[in-house]
Amino acid sequence: MAQKRKRNVYLKMQTLDGALKVWSERTCGLRTPVENIEAARALHRITAGPVVAARSVPHYHGAAMDGFAVRAEQTFGAGDVHPMRLVVGETAFPVDTGDPLPEEANAVIMIEQVEMVGEREVEIRAAAFPWQHVRKVGEDIVAGEMLIPQHHRLRPSDIGALLAAGVLRISVFARPRVSIQPTGTELVPAERAAEAAPGEIIEFNGTVLAGMVTECGGESVLREIVADDYESLVKAIAGAVASDADVVIVNAGSSAGSEDFTSSIIGELGEVLVHGVAMMPGKPVILGIISGKPVIGVPGYPVSAIMAFEQFVVPLLHSLQALHAPSFETAEATMGRKTPSKLGLEEFVRVIVGRVRGEMIAMPIQRGAGLITSLVRADGMIRIPQEQEGVEVGEKVMVRLLRPKGQLDRTLIMIGSHDNTIDVLANELKRRDSRIHLSSSNVGSLGGLVALRRGQAHLAGSHLLSTETGEYNFSYIEQYLRGVPIRVVQLAKRQQGLLVRPGNPKDIRGIEDLVRPDVSFINRQAGSGTRILFDYSLAQSFVEPGSIRGYDQEEFTHMAVAVNVLSGRADAGMAIYASAKALGLDFLPVAEERYDLVIPESSFPNPGMDLLLEIIASESFREVVKSLGGYDVSASGTVVGRWNGEEWLA
Amino acid sequence: MAQKRKRNVYLKMQTLDGALKVWSERTCGLRTPVENIEAARALHRITAGPVVAARSVPHYHGAAMDGFAVRAEQTFGAGDVHPMRLVVGETAFPVDTGDPLPEEANAVIMIEQVEMVGEREVEIRAAAFPWQHVRKVGEDIVAGEMLIPQHHRLRPSDIGALLAAGVLRISVFARPRVSIQPTGTELVPAERAAEAAPGEIIEFNGTVLAGMVTECGGESVLREIVADDYESLVKAIAGAVASDADVVIVNAGSSAGSEDFTSSIIGELGEVLVHGVAMMPGKPVILGIISGKPVIGVPGYPVSAIMAFEQFVVPLLHSLQALHAPSFETAEATMGRKTPSKLGLEEFVRVIVGRVRGEMIAMPIQRGAGLITSLVRADGMIRIPQEQEGVEVGEKVMVRLLRPKGQLDRTLIMIGSHDNTIDVLANELKRRDSRIHLSSSNVGSLGGLVALRRGQAHLAGSHLLSTETGEYNFSYIEQYLRGVPIRVVQLAKRQQGLLVRPGNPKDIRGIEDLVRPDVSFINRQAGSGTRILFDYSLAQSFVEPGSIRGYDQEEFTHMAVAVNVLSGRADAGMAIYASAKALGLDFLPVAEERYDLVIPESSFPNPGMDLLLEIIASESFREVVKSLGGYDVSASGTVVGRWNGEEWLA
Repeated sequence: MAQKRKRNVYLKMQTLDGALKVWSERTCGLRTPVENIEAARALHRITAGPVVAARSVPHYHGAAMDGFAVRAEQTFGAGDVHPMRLVVGETAFPVDTGDPLPEEANAVIMIEQVEMVGEREVEIRAAAFPWQHVRKVGEDIVAGEMLIPQHHRLRPSDIGALLAAGVLRISVFARPRVSIQPTGTELVPAERAAEAAPGEIIEFNGTVLAGMVTECGGESVLREIVADDYESLVKAIAGAVASDADVVIVNAGSSAGSEDFTSSIIGELGEVLVHGVAMMPGKPVILGIISGKPVIGVPGYPVSAIMAFEQFVVPLLHSLQALHAPSFETAEATMGRKTPSKLGLEEFVRVIVGRVRGEMIAMPIQRGAGLITSLVRADGMIRIPQEQEGVEVGEKVMVRLLRPKGQLDRTLIMIGSHDNTIDVLANELKRRDSRIHLSSSNVGSLGGLVALRRGQAHLAGSHLLSTETGEYNFSYIEQYLRGVPIRVVQLAKRQQGLLVRPGNPKDIRGIEDLVRPDVSFINRQAGSGTRILFDYSLAQSFVEPGSIRGYDQEEFTHMAVAVNVLSGRADAGMAIYASAKALGLDFLPVAEERYDLVIPESSFPNPGMDLLLEIIASESFREVVKSLGGYDVSASGTVVGRWNGEEWLA
Repeated sequence: MAQKRKRNVYLKMQTLDGALKVWSERTCGLRTPVENIEAARALHRITAGPVVAARSVPHYHGAAMDGFAVRAEQTFGAGDVHPMRLVVGETAFPVDTGDPLPEEANAVIMIEQVEMVGEREVEIRAAAFPWQHVRKVGEDIVAGEMLIPQHHRLRPSDIGALLAAGVLRISVFARPRVSIQPTGTELVPAERAAEAAPGEIIEFNGTVLAGMVTECGGESVLREIVADDYESLVKAIAGAVASDADVVIVNAGSSAGSEDFTSSIIGELGEVLVHGVAMMPGKPVILGIISGKPVIGVPGYPVSAIMAFEQFVVPLLHSLQALHAPSFETAEATMGRKTPSKLGLEEFVRVIVGRVRGEMIAMPIQRGAGLITSLVRADGMIRIPQEQEGVEVGEKVMVRLLRPKGQLDRTLIMIGSHDNTIDVLANELKRRDSRIHLSSSNVGSLGGLVALRRGQAHLAGSHLLSTETGEYNFSYIEQYLRGVPIRVVQLAKRQQGLLVRPGNPKDIRGIEDLVRPDVSFINRQAGSGTRILFDYSLAQSFVEPGSIRGYDQEEFTHMAVAVNVLSGRADAGMAIYASAKALGLDFLPVAEERYDLVIPESSFPNPGMDLLLEIIASESFREVVKSLGGYDVSASGTVVGRWNGEEWLA
């Protein structure tokens, strides 16, 4: 039982800078072995020593043009007034580009500047100067010269220079070899994902880390999963260290959890330099050395694992080849949302980034270390230093980019309510122009309108019902976007309804049945479009909210509601059809609502925005959305309203 | 004979933009086949369709912390004043991170916030709120949700998300396959470089282009060299087109030279879209289509080949995978030297780039399309538009970088006289810190001092003899660097002498023998340090310059002088020992001269500069330089003078 097991504590948590210093001091002198390989296969490898040319290029005096080789001195005096004739084979020798010059020649006259006179003679109207149009010996490369310095990463043109200079083999650092050891009794290989039981976790960190090793120019061996058993772990880690790997990564087993043995084992087999770094995600990292080899215990949560790898393994894999890690691409941006952070922890916050109204805006997204999709969705990352308690709205931040910088100006920022059709839209944009990216942050309809007012987004998704008029969005725009000219474009109408377990075991027929004592309900948070619609539907059916069991239990997304129903925590909840379909639930339609894109006129002109509107109105988009089920796309792309900031235009 | 062969002319030269437009219109719809591969092996591949999650992550409600799972409602009321006791196994269940929650639980209390009371009970002092420290089903990924859009290049974290979501196979575009056909009777494979006769040229472009294909995510097949014979070429090109390649590159045979058949053959087998583009280097490019496959005739000069590939093949290899080519990294710089360019030609000029006195400076280097080393040495490239006649000194230019941008601030710009020890220095800098780069432009000693005055370099190499004092550099600094505080550091003393053919067949004993009628001489250009030294030596020996045959024949580098002697064009020339050694010539010492580094005080503080001075004074540097021969390094690193801009300091 957990309470009986011995618990580790972090020996002494280090700051990130402190840990990096210790790590670098102990590993910066390590190098992979030097190997001598074919120059033609040395692309992107790192030279272990200076490379000297074996031969000169060119290795002979050659014609640089098609024409006639001559002795320049013999052409002096030739001019327009006094053309000069040369005898072919005696004083003028036909040459093509690359041909060696005849012994006596020292210049080439271009074919275009020569006139043939019969079979044997050519006439020239200008003198040649010595060495004109001649590629002289050693003009490009001189034998014995240094061609490439050591510690240089070879580019295609470098390889060309090596081959040209007769350098066929070259000494480079071996690619760093990394042995990756996944550990954990709960882990299941990805191939068996479909069979994973509750409590089992798909092992995918190993593949992610292997990909990162590749990006550092290294090679990796992904070892078989080992269970959380002390003896097995000792054997596995000792085996990895004894292999030909230059670096060993153990994942996970690096936190202070009760089954986390990695630190003790590294300490037993070698030396633990650091256990625990004041960074988030990535805190429970272990840095150690066994038999002279760096061994890194990387945390189990995927984002933590990636951050720990970036901080400690990326520089190591470079220094093993005598390189410094390349600096990340960055961009300055203005923070769009207040983002608190713990004092004493370096925090890395994932953000979406785009240029709105000329200003680069960064909006934080989910922070959970377990959310691999947060890295998939993020455009970048900001680092909040440990001496800072967070970042305020409007503060300038330096964003380390996770996408090519050139794409930033083509990123559309969408903040507001989420709908599955937004994914379709994002995909269509990328399909038509791979540079255009739709980054979205889901904060609910009202949050989206507020972001628009603050100039933090190009568009918002909104489905806010006005319970007085039965109309959507307009009254909220009047209230929240005074002074901001807006175009409202209908994306789709969608069905909201009650989700119930497959087969509807409680036989719920509609909203009226929610008051039954044997039925429990799960609600959405106050202020969400769905909650407003639900309350409106209750009022229309004269159902008293207080009479519904679970009305006070709130969730924040459609999917969360669906999950509650699927797991039996509630018998019913209100959500869109797509969420029922995703989890295989039954769906009882309650109402159709309009989901609009709310777009400030200041978002135009923008090629991405134009393309987006074109897509929404296209037949292919409608077809795909229709196939999702639960959508009416007959009026998709229609401008349903134009607001000049003061009033609605006709 | 050349004058009899038929000559092609460029059908119609296109502008670069015009050619790109035609090319893109005809090829932008082409895609490589879609293939279904293992997700774990899909790193950096491009998705051919949107990818949907096969399962939810997590797929069960799990503990996010080590501790006790509880039903939150049962803990309400617990507080510091009113601690609450829970019964283990009944109302509190021990869980580790990742464990599934027991059916009735909906929250986790961290182990740190629980006190054990005997074996069976735990005490809590705060209520749990529902779902605290719980990873809920679908929190990261919901089954059926779009995970990755199409046309997305998969990063390690994306692969992680795929595996987590149970996506084991994925549809991606096949890597573009490129068949590279080297053509040319004069070509010799690089393996046979040592045997290459005059007129034979080492084939290395194919390997360079193959490397560039790799960098675009493609695969290449480098075919065997084919001679310039019409029938063989037809067969080879038709064979390449009939292979499984998506793209065929023919190199070279693309100019209007007499043996250049490629254009006719592409026209015969398919269609020539463009022949000749108004760009330099790269003009004689051919763009064609055979049987629906893009076929590109790439020029033979290596820099031309690379430029043509970058302009036309890089975008193609990306669009075949539905991507846009990434934009190049750029930096704005100030042009340090007037650079003329032809109207009507887009010219690409290679430059070295570094930050001098706070300003980013670009200095052009050699422009020859045949000089592969110009790309090895360049830090970047500027593009002079066809409607512009060149770039003036001080003009702002946008430099496309050929090195990581982060290295620019660590690049030392050295302009002036070249010496082989500079290569040693550059190598030592890189050995000690791979980020530090010494970029040099060789314009002679005086040119270096002028560049320092203009603030265009961090240091200059100089060996200017004052014939009045017999001293080096000081009088020139007084004259050219008034107002510029300078530190003069001795790099080495080096021997200058007469180069003669091996075995000294003309039995030349010294300067006095140069006046012999059977001896011809090759001189250096007026103003060069070597010329000044030579004239000084003549004067000291009372030799009349006019009595030396060839005194008026000038070359611009030590190596060019050596080449003249080696090839027999001259019997003797004055140069440094290293140039004799490089080409295996005999060397008759004439004088020892001081080669100094002239460094403006404004170049400090600079970590690279500090390291450079440390290296010069080091024993290891001296050893390497001594081994080159012809150097006296006993005082290397000595500050031989300090000039405050007005006078020399004691």
